[in-house]
Amino acid sequence: MKLIGVDIGGTRTRIGAFDAGRFLARRAFPTQGMGEVVAEIRALLSRVGWEAPQAIGVGAPAPMDMRAGVILGCPNLPHWRRVEVVKALREEFGCPVYLANDATCAAIGELEFGHRAQNFVYVTWSTGIGGGIVTGGRVVWGATGQAGEVGHMVLRPDGPSCRCGKQGCLEAIASGTGIARAARELLGEELSAEDVIARARVGDRRAGEIVEAACRALGRGLAILWELLEPELLVVGGGLTGSWDYLGPKVQSSLREFARGDPRVVSTELGDDVGLYGAAALPHHFPNEWTSL
Amino acid sequence: MKLIGVDIGGTRTRIGAFDAGRFLARRAFPTQGMGEVVAEIRALLSRVGWEAPQAIGVGAPAPMDMRAGVILGCPNLPHWRRVEVVKALREEFGCPVYLANDATCAAIGELEFGHRAQNFVYVTWSTGIGGGIVTGGRVVWGATGQAGEVGHMVLRPDGPSCRCGKQGCLEAIASGTGIARAARELLGEELSAEDVIARARVGDRRAGEIVEAACRALGRGLAILWELLEPELLVVGGGLTGSWDYLGPKVQSSLREFARGDPRVVSTELGDDVGLYGAAALPHHFPNEWTSL
Repeated sequence: MKLIGVDIGGTRTRIGAFDAGRFLARRAFPTQGMGEVVAEIRALLSRVGWEAPQAIGVGAPAPMDMRAGVILGCPNLPHWRRVEVVKALREEFGCPVYLANDATCAAIGELEFGHRAQNFVYVTWSTGIGGGIVTGGRVVWGATGQAGEVGHMVLRPDGPSCRCGKQGCLEAIASGTGIARAARELLGEELSAEDVIARARVGDRRAGEIVEAACRALGRGLAILWELLEPELLVVGGGLTGSWDYLGPKVQSSLREFARGDPRVVSTELGDDVGLYGAAALPHHFPNEWTSL
Repeated sequence: MKLIGVDIGGTRTRIGAFDAGRFLARRAFPTQGMGEVVAEIRALLSRVGWEAPQAIGVGAPAPMDMRAGVILGCPNLPHWRRVEVVKALREEFGCPVYLANDATCAAIGELEFGHRAQNFVYVTWSTGIGGGIVTGGRVVWGATGQAGEVGHMVLRPDGPSCRCGKQGCLEAIASGTGIARAARELLGEELSAEDVIARARVGDRRAGEIVEAACRALGRGLAILWELLEPELLVVGGGLTGSWDYLGPKVQSSLREFARGDPRVVSTELGDDVGLYGAAALPHHFPNEWTSL
């Protein structure tokens, strides 16, 4: 099946042409608006010699109305406010188009092209924290496709304020943004999460405490997923997994403290492309009853 | 379809004969061993005039090997240590037999005979706290049927010890056992959870604080379910829902504090029979790939 995947990110958009589950070609470019996406898909189609795709899957980080196929937009995506992406691409390319949350797409990528467990949770550990749940080989969508909000479990009711309006969410404590805020408050310095991790690696005690606290919180969140969903494994992706060799053992240790059994967490092997893989496979997983075409 | 449901409880066992989704007859008796269950099923069959059932579903609270059909037993169920319940009943009645956790059965009961939402979590609030998850109209089983361990989310790492070996689990804080322990520690009295709730109802301040803390913790746990699974609603059953008129608003208020959107929690309308209903419908929901018959 000739499929196009589109992964709209905060800074870069990735598109790829897939056939029989294999990447034929891919492109990445700075995220702008719909015009650029259409032009890049056209270029990709001509490169692989397809007249048209048979389906298009789109993943995006912003709030969306999945069933209506509309990206609602967020500060990170100024060109994508109330964009009817499904309608626009369907009219442009004459094929079914499907839209889903990027973390859900990443879970689909893991299911189809990664570790391929039938029961797992994919967690994005990056500027924010998101997730996608797969159980019995099927995506857990929830009532309107918003399931998987791993980052908004409240772990500490008296914890730091979260951008979602609550306090003490996993995301507020353990995300890249949370780590940078902890550095600002505890070290009095403007550092990126990567800076803090780099300092911790070389033995800076106070940076080390910040990193420990973040890993411990992430492990606690993963332990809740383990108890609730009995997955075979947990898969973590996103920017902070660039330091997984250092962070992974800390996360695993916390996970084992807070979950029974033999919980296992690994990092994705698909790197930055996990969401793109999943977007391309989205047409096979989108709930039938939500398909209007 | 002629179905027999069996709900083995810590004190009472319930059995029922169902046809076309309707209760034809039911019996309840003190929980003993397999011999009593077989005899009571025979009596039920003769009462409804069936020669044999077409399938039997069994729910039990103890740890089990669902795929092997074996109840592993626990202190509450002394007659059910390593009992091959599926094999025994299959040989006795010559029909397929299915075994699952009682909270999962209760979720199936809610799905088929209760609120009938396609996306919800059923939570047992009783001596312990358990749960069953339904998403897209399907039960979430997890890797071996153990999914839904709502009670073992750690909410407070420095909280009270849990029987599972961890500290600060939702169950240790908010279950009937947790409420009774809080009363012992804070009031210095041996009270049941029901006693504590009764005192709180009539304005006892310290009993009221214990009840508030339990409801707040339960609301926090439900909020995590809401964020992770995007259900349409949450359904609570079990002994403590006997006081739902008093406790429900407190739980709902905590849920709204810790979850975004418009989270909704209701009590089951099926009372003590929710698990029995679900056991009878279990044959329709048991994962095909786990069926050895």
